Amino acid sequence: MTVHQKSAYTLGELAEILGVPYRGDPAIVIRGVGPLEAAEPDRLSFLANAKYASMVPRSRAGAIVVEPSLADTMDRPLLLSERPYLTMARAAQLFHRLPPLNDGVHETAFVAEGVELGPEVRVGPLVHLGSGSRIGARTRVYGSAYIGCGVSVGEDCLIYPGVYILDGCRIGDRVIVHSGTVIGSDGYGFAQDEQGRHVKIPQSGIVQIDDDVEIGANCTVDRATFGKTWIQRGTKIDNLVQLAHNVVVGEHSLLVAQVGIAGSTRLGRHVVLGGQVGVVGHIELGDAVRVGAQSGVAHSVEPGKDLIGSPAVEHRQWFRTHANIQRLPRMKNQIRELQKRVAELEGYLKQLRPQAEEDEVHESND
Amino acid sequence: MTVHQKSAYTLGELAEILGVPYRGDPAIVIRGVGPLEAAEPDRLSFLANAKYASMVPRSRAGAIVVEPSLADTMDRPLLLSERPYLTMARAAQLFHRLPPLNDGVHETAFVAEGVELGPEVRVGPLVHLGSGSRIGARTRVYGSAYIGCGVSVGEDCLIYPGVYILDGCRIGDRVIVHSGTVIGSDGYGFAQDEQGRHVKIPQSGIVQIDDDVEIGANCTVDRATFGKTWIQRGTKIDNLVQLAHNVVVGEHSLLVAQVGIAGSTRLGRHVVLGGQVGVVGHIELGDAVRVGAQSGVAHSVEPGKDLIGSPAVEHRQWFRTHANIQRLPRMKNQIRELQKRVAELEGYLKQLRPQAEEDEVHESND
Amino acid sequence: MTVHQKSAYTLGELAEILGVPYRGDPAIVIRGVGPLEAAEPDRLSFLANAKYASMVPRSRAGAIVVEPSLADTMDRPLLLSERPYLTMARAAQLFHRLPPLNDGVHETAFVAEGVELGPEVRVGPLVHLGSGSRIGARTRVYGSAYIGCGVSVGEDCLIYPGVYILDGCRIGDRVIVHSGTVIGSDGYGFAQDEQGRHVKIPQSGIVQIDDDVEIGANCTVDRATFGKTWIQRGTKIDNLVQLAHNVVVGEHSLLVAQVGIAGSTRLGRHVVLGGQVGVVGHIELGDAVRVGAQSGVAHSVEPGKDLIGSPAVEHRQWFRTHANIQRLPRMKNQIRELQKRVAELEGYLKQLRPQAEEDEVHESND
Repeated sequence: MTVHQKSAYTLGELAEILGVPYRGDPAIVIRGVGPLEAAEPDRLSFLANAKYASMVPRSRAGAIVVEPSLADTMDRPLLLSERPYLTMARAAQLFHRLPPLNDGVHETAFVAEGVELGPEVRVGPLVHLGSGSRIGARTRVYGSAYIGCGVSVGEDCLIYPGVYILDGCRIGDRVIVHSGTVIGSDGYGFAQDEQGRHVKIPQSGIVQIDDDVEIGANCTVDRATFGKTWIQRGTKIDNLVQLAHNVVVGEHSLLVAQVGIAGSTRLGRHVVLGGQVGVVGHIELGDAVRVGAQSGVAHSVEPGKDLIGSPAVEHRQWFRTHANIQRLPRMKNQIRELQKRVAELEGYLKQLRPQAEEDEVHESND
Repeated sequence: MTVHQKSAYTLGELAEILGVPYRGDPAIVIRGVGPLEAAEPDRLSFLANAKYASMVPRSRAGAIVVEPSLADTMDRPLLLSERPYLTMARAAQLFHRLPPLNDGVHETAFVAEGVELGPEVRVGPLVHLGSGSRIGARTRVYGSAYIGCGVSVGEDCLIYPGVYILDGCRIGDRVIVHSGTVIGSDGYGFAQDEQGRHVKIPQSGIVQIDDDVEIGANCTVDRATFGKTWIQRGTKIDNLVQLAHNVVVGEHSLLVAQVGIAGSTRLGRHVVLGGQVGVVGHIELGDAVRVGAQSGVAHSVEPGKDLIGSPAVEHRQWFRTHANIQRLPRMKNQIRELQKRVAELEGYLKQLRPQAEEDEVHESND
Repeated sequence: MTVHQKSAYTLGELAEILGVPYRGDPAIVIRGVGPLEAAEPDRLSFLANAKYASMVPRSRAGAIVVEPSLADTMDRPLLLSERPYLTMARAAQLFHRLPPLNDGVHETAFVAEGVELGPEVRVGPLVHLGSGSRIGARTRVYGSAYIGCGVSVGEDCLIYPGVYILDGCRIGDRVIVHSGTVIGSDGYGFAQDEQGRHVKIPQSGIVQIDDDVEIGANCTVDRATFGKTWIQRGTKIDNLVQLAHNVVVGEHSLLVAQVGIAGSTRLGRHVVLGGQVGVVGHIELGDAVRVGAQSGVAHSVEPGKDLIGSPAVEHRQWFRTHANIQRLPRMKNQIRELQKRVAELEGYLKQLRPQAEEDEVHESND
């Protein structure tokens, strides 16, 4: 996220920083952002979807981000953007303040031998920094977070309270990890012995998380058996997501809350998994695959496919199957009607048949 | 919960405190509660369901809570209640002891500047109390819990070990939060840029939790983008539940374990969601809606409806569809039989037809 | 897990320790294990599945564990085992190093009155050991873990950072609990009062975890209402699993990630539940029951059954039903064709009928 610079900007300054044209008085002072219905006169708001345009006249917002095509219909201060939602996100980052944290290393933190801290690193109360761990410049490790031995965390990261990054894991730059998330727990691997007991396979790999990844709260990312479990650049993960050992998640993917991905499965770039989706182990989901909420993916998927259902199938097939199931009562009635009609035909022909058979007899007698 | 007062009560005292009639010797001493099959003679037990009445004679319990209608069938000390389970719950609260905790603030806790503590607040070892946080009278913050900056927690709350209540969130009175739960993590919100990268939308709202709410272990409740994520009075939430940003859960609702609710969805009062239910974002579930376990709710639901399935439909429809699916093998057979009968008819008519056609020829020749 | 002894073994030593025959030079030095495709010449690798035999010639591994039947096809150092995967697991344990931890009790740990520590116990920084807790010999409690009052933990356990074992719970020997897991949170139990409010039923039982159990990260195991929630010997549990109050999990069972089991349900021995499975409360799953991922089990299950689906049914039934659903489009076409053929028959008979009726008339006039 963009580092916070000021608590107020003029409309003209915002237009310049955000790289978009504006309408109205450039001296208007903006001190934050807010939704149309609640924004005060010193706030910037936005219209992401033209169907909510009727809310604009009632909004008290000091300025509004809108698509250029709508500019002429609105006689008030505007920022013009082809992507109002994106421009709004960037504006909000300008005003956003990170949760406060002490400068330097808090006196109640435990810092082991051989820890390396970059410039302007902040480490909160009751934090654990294991031996040989390295924390990059300006990264914030909030109170009660845990960094294990030999962990490396890049620059400008936010490690929230109660995050556990276990021994040997590697975190890139500008990574955000939310509270309660565990990175580097053992993968789930056992070999059965002669008596059916489960013998642990030690998990000696690590987790690698690349730049610009964000991971939500109370997630679990297991370390690899060998090698690494790997979350690639720009991927954003919601809360309570489970990534098993040796999983690879490609760049710029989105994993919504409560997703679970089993061991050694690989996701391509720009994959989107809806909430509560499950993916079995040892398969591949191609680039830009999208899977609907609660689906269960049991086979590898070609790039670009949209899947849904448990077991998941392509959208079109799911809707066809679903429509067919809804059509079952009608099919039942159609069968019943056919049974009636066929019975009538049979009954009628039974009447005919004796005569016909008689005819046949006569014929054969001819 | 009722504060613990004594370690033993007589049957007569219990009857008075609980507001129910009793049978038997009022001087019988009761020192706790227990199930019928395991209760010792100094324990109170209960019969919540008449179908287990056969267990009563074998129970060693000193007294039993039963429905008044069953009283005459049982010649032993009783408490009579139209709601034995409720009366038992209240009795159990009388005997229940909270997990022990030091008086005052433990010396290993971190207490920032400007923290306000009400009378009889207890703060355990290694707790983090952020700057400007306020803790109401008699609230207990157990060891290793984390209270962020500017958080307010009401009176008589129980904040268990390893709870994370992040900056600015507001907790009412008599709220219980179990270990590992995160309140106030960032909502999951991103805008896509021109290159398909996900740009973070700062989450500047809070979480508000009203009086008498209980939240289980390892849940996640995200802060709002703007405004608040809101859990209303009396709602009880099980473990590993995910509530996204700007969700509102109405009063006295029940969310069973592993439920996930997506952003901005609103639940009414007395809603019940079974385990592992998923609810999409931006919809409304009316008062008293009940959803069966593992269901997926994709559309707004009228008050009072019972839903089940993924996608969830009304109970009746689900059972009808399900019955139809079970009927498929029979339908398949019916179709096969019809095909056979129709083929027979056709075959028979083929025999007829040449003659009939001959007849026609004759006729036309007539 | 086997305690680490040395950092290098000869092939002959490994064969003796693991109790398997070998081929090749017994003096070959092995310093670790690795997969076929990545193992260096000082590593032991393994071929668990004959279908990957083509990878063996390219592998640089110093020795390979293979089935005896394959030995003659491979002219290189080997360990021969009927269960290569199991032998590999045991070899890997020989080389595995536990995450480092200080000797003794770290000075920043909180240790309450009356704590008993066995010989060679290690307690990390910022750990909480509640009053009256007992930790068995050689057990490691890593930094920031929380052990409540009156908890007992056996010998040779690994309690990872951020584990919460709450008051009164009992943990056996050689138990491993991963970060973020909560053991002993309150069960989810409420009685409804006259106004529809939920009155808490105090949860006064405990959790008991027997020897050789392993529990993943961010799991929740609720304490019993009365008595105990119980995980029996040798069971292995993945991440984010929810076990409700009074659940019993039998010996040597496997619960994959994100499973949820509702209150008072009992699982037999050697039960296997796939990822995201849900099981309702108050039922029994017999020994060796296996349930496919994402299934929902709503009824008790006989020993040895394989189930799948939501609601879960036996494998065979599920595949039949599923096949029938896939056959729906064909059934629809068959019905349509039957309708056409019956209509043709009817049309043809309509032609016949007037004549036939005429015939009848003639006949009756005869």
